[in-house]
Amino acid sequence: MSAETSTLLLHTLYLIAIVAEAMTAALAAGRRDMDWMGVCIIACVTALGGGSLRDVLLGHYPLTWVAHPEYLGMTAGAALLTAFMAPWMRRLRRLFLWLDAVGLVAFTVIGCQVAQHMEMSVSVVLISGMITGCAGGVLRDVLCNDVPLLFRKELYASVSIVTGALYVGLQTLDWSGNVVVPVALAVGLAFRLLALRFNWQMPRFVYRDDWH
Amino acid sequence: MSAETSTLLLHTLYLIAIVAEAMTAALAAGRRDMDWMGVCIIACVTALGGGSLRDVLLGHYPLTWVAHPEYLGMTAGAALLTAFMAPWMRRLRRLFLWLDAVGLVAFTVIGCQVAQHMEMSVSVVLISGMITGCAGGVLRDVLCNDVPLLFRKELYASVSIVTGALYVGLQTLDWSGNVVVPVALAVGLAFRLLALRFNWQMPRFVYRDDWH
Amino acid sequence: MSAETSTLLLHTLYLIAIVAEAMTAALAAGRRDMDWMGVCIIACVTALGGGSLRDVLLGHYPLTWVAHPEYLGMTAGAALLTAFMAPWMRRLRRLFLWLDAVGLVAFTVIGCQVAQHMEMSVSVVLISGMITGCAGGVLRDVLCNDVPLLFRKELYASVSIVTGALYVGLQTLDWSGNVVVPVALAVGLAFRLLALRFNWQMPRFVYRDDWH
Repeated sequence: MSAETSTLLLHTLYLIAIVAEAMTAALAAGRRDMDWMGVCIIACVTALGGGSLRDVLLGHYPLTWVAHPEYLGMTAGAALLTAFMAPWMRRLRRLFLWLDAVGLVAFTVIGCQVAQHMEMSVSVVLISGMITGCAGGVLRDVLCNDVPLLFRKELYASVSIVTGALYVGLQTLDWSGNVVVPVALAVGLAFRLLALRFNWQMPRFVYRDDWH
Repeated sequence: MSAETSTLLLHTLYLIAIVAEAMTAALAAGRRDMDWMGVCIIACVTALGGGSLRDVLLGHYPLTWVAHPEYLGMTAGAALLTAFMAPWMRRLRRLFLWLDAVGLVAFTVIGCQVAQHMEMSVSVVLISGMITGCAGGVLRDVLCNDVPLLFRKELYASVSIVTGALYVGLQTLDWSGNVVVPVALAVGLAFRLLALRFNWQMPRFVYRDDWH
Repeated sequence: MSAETSTLLLHTLYLIAIVAEAMTAALAAGRRDMDWMGVCIIACVTALGGGSLRDVLLGHYPLTWVAHPEYLGMTAGAALLTAFMAPWMRRLRRLFLWLDAVGLVAFTVIGCQVAQHMEMSVSVVLISGMITGCAGGVLRDVLCNDVPLLFRKELYASVSIVTGALYVGLQTLDWSGNVVVPVALAVGLAFRLLALRFNWQMPRFVYRDDWH
């Protein structure tokens, strides 16, 4: 895969992912009876919030949606469309679980790249990938007044860490970046889909004791 | 209206608005039985949080309350005063709905101006206005553990968008800024008060389905 | 106390404090049945979130954990350890209340120092100390979907303000910084422990009225 193809692949997956994240976020807003404006805001925050939090924490300006405000229109439009086609969304359940997994790995690799361009250390690169991949969903859950699913769900953050580690690790093997990106994406995606299929779970820490 | 009068008007409305926002935020804190310190913190976050979030997202330093720490004292003082005059606040309900509407439109125009000074694109200017006008209330609701009212209430964010669009649009007509500001404020205010008076609502998206 | 000893004391207390904050945060995550990854994330956000919020609000880059990613490993490791030694944690209740108080005053002084190095005004220095000392716990409570304890608990934020005021005030008396730091830490710690021991409370503002 050439450098151009690799970059194009990642960018295409990114665009698909922000639209898909916006659509599932719209459903979460619908469960809370939000009005159309609330639906659009939740969708934008979910789709673009992970990258925004990463950029604010790393001091990486301008933010993605400031440089590309058309992404705001895309996510808000996708969210409104979802409100109209909601009755059909149930049948598309499996598709959206796939697209959500695509978003997770694509966001992660992009987050790692941003931190690498800023010459951050390896652990910050991994954290940057994880924030980009996962924080949008956390913001959505906080705004919808839920305990974030991330902290209880099937290996979501773990998939992000594995994808990021693979992306960084393969580079140290002197593989070309144009091979590293698709391999990291593919393995991360496979890991996530297997985790969903076989309901892999990380052990939970259950603690009952009311002192504080 | 001269340039000085226009600037003075906006600044005066801003000061009135942060005090009014602090006072209604103090009542929200009182509903959660917070102590005086909690009341002051919720008030400061509500009154100054929208502008702070805007500045952090746009990379616009220093933040307003860092440059003008006296605003922190004003909002905290107004919040404590509210705790003492709470029995009278019910009678002032209508006044505070008005002042809240004033705050919404004044914050919005100020947020648009900040993004314009940074030479942002039109859509970022509108978003900057909306964040400045609306995000303080969202932060208040998150800290009070509520689903943000913004996403369900009468045309709150919509008023901000309309006010911002008017403010930006009238400038392209080559109107002087000294006319544009009061016109945008007045129309936005009228829109908000009519929405309250006639209970205008945006359609809601209600979705019931428990897949995730 | 020499300048080196004073700096070393503060840094040692800081390291002890982030580990202790991570461990009590892990227990909060355990009460919500989070998985191991969620436990680690909550621990990192609680221990390092106050300083991160301060740095983002003041535009003070790079953030602490970006410059020292080993702190992420320390807090995540301490959190996992806590999940394994949870049955013993109950007996250590008193110890962790002490360590939490140490963290509160150490974080506060460090937060004041950061703002002073940036030549902020006195009130911003105090706020910077309070955000550093208190905001991590607020973020933990928001992510665990609780009303933040800070706004209702025994003089937590007040201890931070007193510690910061003492730290700033003693400097104006021309005391050496090497005396000021331990004195502010000791008085703040004593205040917090007395507040815990005698259950000192700040008056609450209780408001019942459902208009909005």
